[in-house]
Amino acid sequence: MQKRSEATRNNILQAAMQLFASRGYDATSVAQICQAAGVSKGAFYHHFPSKQAVFVALLDNWLNVLDEQIAALVSQAGSIPEGLVQMASVSEDVFKSARGQLPMFLEFWRESSHDPLVWNATIEPYRHYTNLFSGLIERGIQEGSLEPVDPQTTARVLLALVLGVILQGVMDPEGAAWNDVLREGIQLIMMKGLARENR
Amino acid sequence: MQKRSEATRNNILQAAMQLFASRGYDATSVAQICQAAGVSKGAFYHHFPSKQAVFVALLDNWLNVLDEQIAALVSQAGSIPEGLVQMASVSEDVFKSARGQLPMFLEFWRESSHDPLVWNATIEPYRHYTNLFSGLIERGIQEGSLEPVDPQTTARVLLALVLGVILQGVMDPEGAAWNDVLREGIQLIMMKGLARENR
Repeated sequence: MQKRSEATRNNILQAAMQLFASRGYDATSVAQICQAAGVSKGAFYHHFPSKQAVFVALLDNWLNVLDEQIAALVSQAGSIPEGLVQMASVSEDVFKSARGQLPMFLEFWRESSHDPLVWNATIEPYRHYTNLFSGLIERGIQEGSLEPVDPQTTARVLLALVLGVILQGVMDPEGAAWNDVLREGIQLIMMKGLARENR
Repeated sequence: MQKRSEATRNNILQAAMQLFASRGYDATSVAQICQAAGVSKGAFYHHFPSKQAVFVALLDNWLNVLDEQIAALVSQAGSIPEGLVQMASVSEDVFKSARGQLPMFLEFWRESSHDPLVWNATIEPYRHYTNLFSGLIERGIQEGSLEPVDPQTTARVLLALVLGVILQGVMDPEGAAWNDVLREGIQLIMMKGLARENR
């Protein structure tokens, strides 16, 4: 039974992902998700309280994959600064996944911005990455590879860079090699400064 | 007549700004804007082809004010790196203006993402700032205050930082002193690197 229940949940997630991507978030109803997944409404609401919860679960799944990739990269790198620069190579996947998904995200965020509970679930990944980066920076300070900066502030700077590059990549997909921009940005922050006077 | 026409245009912009902020972008109709501005529909469409055009004009006005502030800061600063760090002080205004406006922007972007013409007008500011930053970096390289980096890529890095800090500030207004985060980020990029090994 446990297995069947899990299969049902996965069917719902798969069907919702396809519908959200092809029709948009607003235009997709719970009834349509149920039909495409071949499940009853009762089964749907057993697994998810709302359509928004399905979106949050899809986002979570995607972020878990990303987390594992980042953890693997950092553990293979010789030091925290190297690991952070390597992160830029993960970004290619992120840009590929994000491309064409902007209208869907905007629809979802627009709806969730009116609902404090869903809004909190939506900005949870942002808090998660602030903590992840902050933890990495603390490790870097401990291993002696990073200056004794404020880990929280520096984590927010790194996250700003990542978010800002993703945002530009979504607005202007063909405008630049966005993972090169991200790599250059991380390198500027980690390895060197732009200004000549401090050399 | 010229003056009266300009006054009409300003009335429309003022009325629209108040309605968008209080009711949201989607829930505001052209008829309501006309009523609040005390103008006829004919007068409205003489000035603006659509509600979206009003939003783009409001965005333009706001960005023009920002441009003047940035130009003043850079001309007062001793060098380009200093000027760029000073820019962080402008961000306080940006965060104040952006706060609470997120649902409105999301509604607008969602609508404009379906319309290539409006979408182009929307991402125009992004191109504008890429060019502005890129020009500043070129000047810095010419005056000898910056390393001979690629101006376009570095402009995108700086813009990513600004956009990413704004995005975090909108998601989590009380989470940090966001203009301090921006200042720290610009300083890391311009003045120093985080990593110890390159000292």
